[in-house]
Amino acid sequence: MTFERKNIREMAGYIPGEQPESSDVIKLNTNENPFPPSPAVDKALSSINIENLRRYPQPTALNLRNAIATHHGIGKENIIVTNGGDELLRLAINTFVETDEAIAVAEPTYTLYEVLAQAHGCQFIRFNLNKDWSLPDDFVKSLNSSNIKLCFLPNPNAPSGTLLSVDKLASIANEFNGLLLIDEAYIDFIDPDLNHDCVELVKKFKNVLLLRTFSKGYSLAGLRIAYGIGDLSIINPMQSKTKDSYNTDYVAQKLAQAALEDQEYAKKSWDFVRTQRSLLKEALTNMGLPCVDSQSNFLLVSVPEVINAEKLYNSLKERGILVRHFKHEGQENYLRITVGTAEGNKLLLSTLNQLLSNS
Amino acid sequence: MTFERKNIREMAGYIPGEQPESSDVIKLNTNENPFPPSPAVDKALSSINIENLRRYPQPTALNLRNAIATHHGIGKENIIVTNGGDELLRLAINTFVETDEAIAVAEPTYTLYEVLAQAHGCQFIRFNLNKDWSLPDDFVKSLNSSNIKLCFLPNPNAPSGTLLSVDKLASIANEFNGLLLIDEAYIDFIDPDLNHDCVELVKKFKNVLLLRTFSKGYSLAGLRIAYGIGDLSIINPMQSKTKDSYNTDYVAQKLAQAALEDQEYAKKSWDFVRTQRSLLKEALTNMGLPCVDSQSNFLLVSVPEVINAEKLYNSLKERGILVRHFKHEGQENYLRITVGTAEGNKLLLSTLNQLLSNS
Repeated sequence: MTFERKNIREMAGYIPGEQPESSDVIKLNTNENPFPPSPAVDKALSSINIENLRRYPQPTALNLRNAIATHHGIGKENIIVTNGGDELLRLAINTFVETDEAIAVAEPTYTLYEVLAQAHGCQFIRFNLNKDWSLPDDFVKSLNSSNIKLCFLPNPNAPSGTLLSVDKLASIANEFNGLLLIDEAYIDFIDPDLNHDCVELVKKFKNVLLLRTFSKGYSLAGLRIAYGIGDLSIINPMQSKTKDSYNTDYVAQKLAQAALEDQEYAKKSWDFVRTQRSLLKEALTNMGLPCVDSQSNFLLVSVPEVINAEKLYNSLKERGILVRHFKHEGQENYLRITVGTAEGNKLLLSTLNQLLSNS
Repeated sequence: MTFERKNIREMAGYIPGEQPESSDVIKLNTNENPFPPSPAVDKALSSINIENLRRYPQPTALNLRNAIATHHGIGKENIIVTNGGDELLRLAINTFVETDEAIAVAEPTYTLYEVLAQAHGCQFIRFNLNKDWSLPDDFVKSLNSSNIKLCFLPNPNAPSGTLLSVDKLASIANEFNGLLLIDEAYIDFIDPDLNHDCVELVKKFKNVLLLRTFSKGYSLAGLRIAYGIGDLSIINPMQSKTKDSYNTDYVAQKLAQAALEDQEYAKKSWDFVRTQRSLLKEALTNMGLPCVDSQSNFLLVSVPEVINAEKLYNSLKERGILVRHFKHEGQENYLRITVGTAEGNKLLLSTLNQLLSNS
């Protein structure tokens, strides 16, 4: 006997990337930042008075929202703070998509989107990216002709790391009849020379919702703090109706604010990741493992069929290096590798060198 | 223009109890524990290494689940750890109730239940408690004849503080065709002489889900940690399919575990609350403000119409004492007052004395 709803009974659930307990493992599989959080986070942690844990936290994380609003030059009412990016994705679905409406993505993409649609019980429509990971020219036309209510667009994309420009996104938002959720989980790793900033889109288009997170750029995956930026008509219903009353906790709110306010430290870590990304990409390419151009903190690495990506994944794992291999169609011949510390990246390269010369 | 779903557009949202920033306010309105968390929580906080925040937390809070399972003498697979009790309530709805099915409560009850049902878009059916706050004899018959899929039963009840016995709950679970969620948010404040423990019900009945929280008994409302105890057929779908992948954070998991493991401290604080509850009840009754028999950390206080409960609420607020007044039908003539510190309770009593002698 089961009490499960039909759609829940029929779905399989999301499998998070492996999180080994051992600290001996070089972990390049779930796109965490290779650096610890800012020392300002440590200071904020030390100054927590546990007496404050007795009471409920600010229900909408007011202080943190103010800090985020100032950081982006936008009103605090345009910000919703969530328990990780997952919560914002779920809220967007639960708040805006009827169960007889449809969500769309361009594949390959973050696999959680489909799981969330299954849990909601709505339709989920997959369009395909072009072979070079770009969006098809008729993408928005397809969205509109399929009456898509919500489109998830990770940018930079996962797992490819490719970037859509602000202009391109503006034209999509302008043409699309539904709600466009731009998942900017990896935005902090974009080359700053590109001046990529989508906050202006929120001011221009009432159908754009940006997702930002402290998990990657601020090294706070363990804390579960993310936020959405959007027009009031999008933020308000999630803030006042569909999010859990106290969705983020006192400690996480405080620590995220400390991390945000230490931009100098954050920027240094992003710069380092970009430098390492270039070095890693060059070395992998020279080794016969070409990579997609990435604006993120990971590289999608093409593995020749004769080597076999899954075998390579397993061989690396046996040697204490975790990367990610997806079995989905079209991704079998790739590994997704997070940019790690200089030391971790070197070890990855020397291990790959060994493995490839033995094969 | 709005993208909101019809049911979201039509609902109003939950209004959390006031959380004034000022520490001068005697806060007896949201049932927090008057004591700070255990010193063991402080120690756990000090030993957090922020390097660990860089990585994702344990997705199902494995260490904390193990501790909870040991505490209750039940398997860890019978436990789901959630981001506060709110999340468990929402998950129960999203996982088990189709939008054309119905949830039921016995009123008056915790007002969040209805808001969660509205957000889900399912039916919400209210039965009435008897005048003495007991359940009507035909309650389960009514549930079954209305085809109720999920029934929320807070025990001790809020706002009355009254308790249903384990035997009574067993007979409800046995007879009820749907899922019975017993919301035990206030269970730690029950007189220990009653030996009230519902964990055995979970082993006997596959339709019972218990909700426990660290917010009240362990003084950790600021952290957002609660858990559910139930049969595998209830826990599994929420654990692996409908909860957010990483729903609780690293710090909260660690601190909750520390609090749980210091039972001596926790029990002392519950004893204190019970002693103060008795004193407060006696004093209020002597003052012409009779209270419902409460097994919780609050008292539902009957205010004679001539005094007017809402006026009394406002007068207390003007004097820096926050209590709760609900405007719902049948509750207009009551105040719900959280049992505070000895000092806070004394100040409440002397202020009430002044106000009543002036009126």
